[in-house]
Amino acid sequence: MSGADLSEIYRGYIDCLNRQDWSGLGDFVHDDARYNGGYIGLSGYRKMLEADFRAIPDLHFNIAFLVCEPPRVASRLLFDCTPKGILFEMPVNGKRIQFAENVFYEFSEGRIHDVRSIIDKAAIAAQLAAV
Amino acid sequence: MSGADLSEIYRGYIDCLNRQDWSGLGDFVHDDARYNGGYIGLSGYRKMLEADFRAIPDLHFNIAFLVCEPPRVASRLLFDCTPKGILFEMPVNGKRIQFAENVFYEFSEGRIHDVRSIIDKAAIAAQLAAV
Repeated sequence: MSGADLSEIYRGYIDCLNRQDWSGLGDFVHDDARYNGGYIGLSGYRKMLEADFRAIPDLHFNIAFLVCEPPRVASRLLFDCTPKGILFEMPVNGKRIQFAENVFYEFSEGRIHDVRSIIDKAAIAAQLAAV
Repeated sequence: MSGADLSEIYRGYIDCLNRQDWSGLGDFVHDDARYNGGYIGLSGYRKMLEADFRAIPDLHFNIAFLVCEPPRVASRLLFDCTPKGILFEMPVNGKRIQFAENVFYEFSEGRIHDVRSIIDKAAIAAQLAAV
């Protein structure tokens, strides 16, 4: 698979998340998906995302840029949102915040098999402290 | 420049850091370097790294994996080290800690021009809390 093809699949994945099309998630996420070193499987992946949208009703994934070298995609994601209550153990409580996520995906059989994500939680803490 | 060439340059950069070869840093870092959205230039970049090694005398950059698509490199870096005192506003005080950094580099004229880094500070906090 070419890098351009894999980028296109990844953009389809992000579009699937933003539409909250959970029945289509299996087209992009492997049955045996792993997340930050732990096995979660497709069902765990879906539960994680559903919980994210419950915590952040206006959640939207925005791709700042991609770096693609099959079988991996690296993505910088930007978020501008208003989480309802506690997020990452911080009392956001409906404040509008911006933060970034630098995340790596390894694909297998055309689907996301292993994710290594770091979210900039310190940026959120700084925004809450500044209020 | 091919992806393989850029990966090789990046590995040379990491080797330069691990040797603390500050006189050679300009071979890898652009005079007008930017870091997490701010201009720091080559001299600011060198000062930042020198401060990192003062805070973490046994600092060593370990590449877990690279994703390379010119002009960008994405790298997952792993650290296993014993910072002396305060690190990222946390009292590490000589404890041995492990953490990761997911970082993007954009190259210009064969040198690092723009960096977007997120360090997993929450992992460090969790290790300190568990002691």
